[in-house]
Amino acid sequence: MPDKLAAARALLARANRLIANEGVLDAFGHVSMRHPTDPSRYLLSRSRGPELVQPEDILEYDLESQPLKPPTLRMYSERVIHGEIYKARPDVHAVCHHHAASILPFCISGAALKPVYHLGATMGEAVPFWDSRDEFGDTNLLVAKPEEGASLARALGPHWTVLMRRHGATVAGRSLEELAFRTIYAARNAALQIEAHMLGHVGALNAQETRLAGGHNLGAGPVMRAWEYWSVRLDKAEGNFHPRAKAAAQKPPVKRKTKSKARRK
Amino acid sequence: MPDKLAAARALLARANRLIANEGVLDAFGHVSMRHPTDPSRYLLSRSRGPELVQPEDILEYDLESQPLKPPTLRMYSERVIHGEIYKARPDVHAVCHHHAASILPFCISGAALKPVYHLGATMGEAVPFWDSRDEFGDTNLLVAKPEEGASLARALGPHWTVLMRRHGATVAGRSLEELAFRTIYAARNAALQIEAHMLGHVGALNAQETRLAGGHNLGAGPVMRAWEYWSVRLDKAEGNFHPRAKAAAQKPPVKRKTKSKARRK
Amino acid sequence: MPDKLAAARALLARANRLIANEGVLDAFGHVSMRHPTDPSRYLLSRSRGPELVQPEDILEYDLESQPLKPPTLRMYSERVIHGEIYKARPDVHAVCHHHAASILPFCISGAALKPVYHLGATMGEAVPFWDSRDEFGDTNLLVAKPEEGASLARALGPHWTVLMRRHGATVAGRSLEELAFRTIYAARNAALQIEAHMLGHVGALNAQETRLAGGHNLGAGPVMRAWEYWSVRLDKAEGNFHPRAKAAAQKPPVKRKTKSKARRK
Amino acid sequence: MPDKLAAARALLARANRLIANEGVLDAFGHVSMRHPTDPSRYLLSRSRGPELVQPEDILEYDLESQPLKPPTLRMYSERVIHGEIYKARPDVHAVCHHHAASILPFCISGAALKPVYHLGATMGEAVPFWDSRDEFGDTNLLVAKPEEGASLARALGPHWTVLMRRHGATVAGRSLEELAFRTIYAARNAALQIEAHMLGHVGALNAQETRLAGGHNLGAGPVMRAWEYWSVRLDKAEGNFHPRAKAAAQKPPVKRKTKSKARRK
Repeated sequence: MPDKLAAARALLARANRLIANEGVLDAFGHVSMRHPTDPSRYLLSRSRGPELVQPEDILEYDLESQPLKPPTLRMYSERVIHGEIYKARPDVHAVCHHHAASILPFCISGAALKPVYHLGATMGEAVPFWDSRDEFGDTNLLVAKPEEGASLARALGPHWTVLMRRHGATVAGRSLEELAFRTIYAARNAALQIEAHMLGHVGALNAQETRLAGGHNLGAGPVMRAWEYWSVRLDKAEGNFHPRAKAAAQKPPVKRKTKSKARRK
Repeated sequence: MPDKLAAARALLARANRLIANEGVLDAFGHVSMRHPTDPSRYLLSRSRGPELVQPEDILEYDLESQPLKPPTLRMYSERVIHGEIYKARPDVHAVCHHHAASILPFCISGAALKPVYHLGATMGEAVPFWDSRDEFGDTNLLVAKPEEGASLARALGPHWTVLMRRHGATVAGRSLEELAFRTIYAARNAALQIEAHMLGHVGALNAQETRLAGGHNLGAGPVMRAWEYWSVRLDKAEGNFHPRAKAAAQKPPVKRKTKSKARRK
Repeated sequence: MPDKLAAARALLARANRLIANEGVLDAFGHVSMRHPTDPSRYLLSRSRGPELVQPEDILEYDLESQPLKPPTLRMYSERVIHGEIYKARPDVHAVCHHHAASILPFCISGAALKPVYHLGATMGEAVPFWDSRDEFGDTNLLVAKPEEGASLARALGPHWTVLMRRHGATVAGRSLEELAFRTIYAARNAALQIEAHMLGHVGALNAQETRLAGGHNLGAGPVMRAWEYWSVRLDKAEGNFHPRAKAAAQKPPVKRKTKSKARRK
Repeated sequence: MPDKLAAARALLARANRLIANEGVLDAFGHVSMRHPTDPSRYLLSRSRGPELVQPEDILEYDLESQPLKPPTLRMYSERVIHGEIYKARPDVHAVCHHHAASILPFCISGAALKPVYHLGATMGEAVPFWDSRDEFGDTNLLVAKPEEGASLARALGPHWTVLMRRHGATVAGRSLEELAFRTIYAARNAALQIEAHMLGHVGALNAQETRLAGGHNLGAGPVMRAWEYWSVRLDKAEGNFHPRAKAAAQKPPVKRKTKSKARRK
C-alpha cells in the first residue's frame, strides 16, 4: 500500500503540472484524486500553484475535507469542492477546479457551453450552471464552506462539468487521465465555440452525436494517447525531455529487430 | 530501396512533428504519405500524438487501410481517410487530417473559408464541406469505416482541402512539403479571415488571383523556403538547434571565399 | 539599512521582470516601490525594458521625482507618475505603469472595465478613467510633467487602478506582491471581459461581491501563492529553474522526516 | 569600409531575426537597409525566412534591384519593393515588408488602421492603402516587377507605412532601429484596434497627438530602449542569453564602484 500511495501522489502531482502546462490552470485552481485504496479519503496538494506541485506536497483528507494529519502548511480554502463531490458521487475518482481563460466568458455571460466538436463531447451531454448568489447571496465567490461545496455538488448532479457564474468551472472524472482529457478539451471546445459564435452560427453536436463521440473519446486509446502527448510536453517545459534517450529506453531489443526487418522489405 | 523507405519514414516523422510544432496538430490528427516506390501502399504512424512521431513509429498500409504486417501497437482509427483519398486521387502523395483551432470555427459555423491573402491561396480555389450527417446520420463523428472515408474522398473531389462539419479538416498534397505549406497557411488564412470578419468585411482574392497566387506559392522556391523555416523552428523546439555548428556545416569552402571577396569590395 | 535597501532593490528588479514575464509589460512601462526606510523617497529603474531590470539599475528619487544623485544613464521620462502618487497616497508602497494588450482596448474604446471574476475583483471597486485631453489638450500622451502626474494621481483618487485614455494603465499597491497580483489579474480580467462581451453579456460582480472577493484575494495566502507561481515561471524563463535542487533547498531535514513517516502509513 | 559593411550586414541580419522573433515575420517577408556608404545600393538577404538570416546571407543590389554579383542562391522575388522605395525616398534607409497577423485583417477588410495609443503613433500620421488590382488587375499579388514596386512606392508617398490589399504591409524607416520600432508597434497597435472595435468604439489619437507622440517615440531614447529589449529577447530565443556574463561585460569597473558607494548611503 505505501507503494500504491506513493505512485498516486506522483501521478496526482504530475496531473496538476500537466493540466497547468496546457494553460488551463494558473496560480489558482487545484486537482485532486480519491485515495487509491480508501474511498473515504482524497488526496490534494497543499496550497500552491498547480504547476509547482510535487509529490511531497500532497495531503490526505477525509470526505469532510479535514486533513488526516494537522497540516504544517497552508491548505486550499476551497477543498470542500473536492470533498463534497467525492461524497455525492462514488463513481468520481478525480476532480479539477479551474478558471480557464476560454471557459470564463461562459461563466461571465451565462451563454451555454455546447460540444462543438467530437473531442469537446467529452465534457458531457449537459453542462449545468451554479450561481453562488442563488443560495448564498453576496459572497467572496469562493466555495469554502461545506454547505457551499454540497450545493455545487448538487448542481453538478450526474454530470461531469459544472460552470460557476463569475468564478470558473469544476470537472469530474473516473480517473486522472480521463479528467485531464475532459478538462483540457472542454477548454479547447469553449475557445472554438466563441470563435464560431463570432462567425455567426454555432452548429453544435446533437445529443446522440455527443453521447457517441464522448463515449468513444473516453476509451483507453484516446485518453492515453492524449495523456502521453501532454506528458511529453510537460517534460519539455520542465527540461526533462531527451528524445534520443527516451527512444532508446522505450524500444526493447525485440522491437528494434522488427524495425530492421521492415527496412529490408 | 531500403534507403528510400528509411528516408521516407524519417521525412514523414519530421512532417508530423513540424506541422504539430506550428500549432495545427495537437494530441490528435495525423499525417501520411504514399509509399515512395509502391503507389498501392501508404505510410502512417501508429496511434500517437503527431508531435511525438519518430521514424520507427511509421507503419505501412495498403489502400484498403490494412496494415502490411500485424501491428503490435494501436493504429489510428481514422486511417481510412488516408487510404480512400490515395485510392481516389493518384496525384495525391501526402495527406493531413487535423483539428486546427482557427479552422474549426468554420467547421462549426458553416461559414465559407476563403483565400484572403496570397499565401492562403494555396488551400485551393474551392474548399468544400463534408457533413457526416448527410450519409451516415448521427455518428461519433469519426471517419473510421471505409464507406465514411470514401464519402469524404468524394467530397474532397478534385480539390485540396475539405472541411468536416463539427470535426476538422483534411488536406492533400503532391508532396509532404507542399502539404505542410497548404495545411499551415490555410490555418493562418482562417485566423485572418475571422479577424477581418470582425472588422466588418472579408475582401477575399478572386478566382483568378487565387489561381495565380496559389500556383506561384506552390513552386519549389516558396515551398522549400517555408519548409526550411519550420524545420529550424522544430529543431529549436526540440533543442537540436546549434546555429554556429549549422552555419559551418552549410557553408562549403567555396562560399566562404566568395564572402571574403565580397568584404574586400 | 544597507541590507534593507539592497533587498528592496533586488525585490523591485524581480517584480519588474516578473510582471513583464506575464506579458503585462513590454519594452515600456515601469514598476517602482517606496523606499523601504524613508517614505519621502522611491526606487525606480533607469530607463530600460522592465524585463531587463537588474538590482544595479535601480535609482533613488525624492517625491518631486528628482534623482538623489546625478544620474549617468537615461531616466524614465514618466517617473512623475510614481512620485505624484506616492505624494498623494501615503498608503501606497508600489506603483506599476503599463500598456497591457488586454487593458488598452478599454483605454481606446472608453468601455468600463468591470470585475468579472473573483480574482479580478482585486483591481478595486471602481476603475476611473483619466484623459490627458481634459486638462492638457493635445499632447504626446506621456505623463512627464509634475502637473500631469498630479492630475493622474487625482484621477486615481482613493482607488487602486486608473485607466489612461489612448495610453495605458497605472496600478497602485500596498506592497510589490499585492501590486503584481492586482496588475496581472486586472489584465486577465480585461481579456475575459472582452470575450464575454462578444458572447453577448457581461455579468459582472456586484459591489459587495467585489469588496468581499477583492479583500479575500489580497490576503497574504493568495498574494504569496501567486507570487511564488510567477516567480518560478520567471526562473524557468530565465533558465534558473532547477526543480530538484530547489526542492532540496526548500525542504528542511525535519520536513523530510515527516514525509517518510507519512509514506509508512 | 570593409568593417562598416561587415557591421551593416551583421546589424541587418540581426534586424531580420529580431523582427521575426516578435512575431511580425514568418517564413516570408524581408528586411533591407540602404548600403552604409553607397546610397545607390541596398543590402538584402538571399531568399530565406527572416528568422534564419545570418550576415553571410546578405547580398548587395543596385536601385534597379539587380544583384551586384551573379547570385549563386535564390533571391527574393519581391526585392523591387525595396529598390523602388530607396529610389523614390532618399530619406529612407531601411525597409520591411511583412504579413503580420494583426495587420492583415485591415488589408483584407479595408478598414482604416489608426494610431490608438502613443506607441502606435510611430506608424505615421496616415497609412495609405495600395491595391494591386488598381493598376495591374488580377495578379498573383506579388510585387515582383519594377513597375509594381514603383506603383507601391508612389502609394507610400511621403508616409512611412503602406497597407497592401489582400497581401501585407511595407514599412520604411530612417534606420533599422527606427524601422523595427515602427513595424512592431504598428502591429501591436493593429491588434489593439481590433479589440477596441469589438468593444464598440475606436477612440484614436487625433492628428496633433499622433504627430507629437510619434515624434517623441522616434527619439533615440525610446527607439534604443525598445531595440535593447527585443535584442535580449532574441538572444534568449537563440540560447545566447547569459544574464550574469552580460551584466559583467556591460558594467565597467567604474560603474561597480558607483554602485557600491550607493549601497553605503
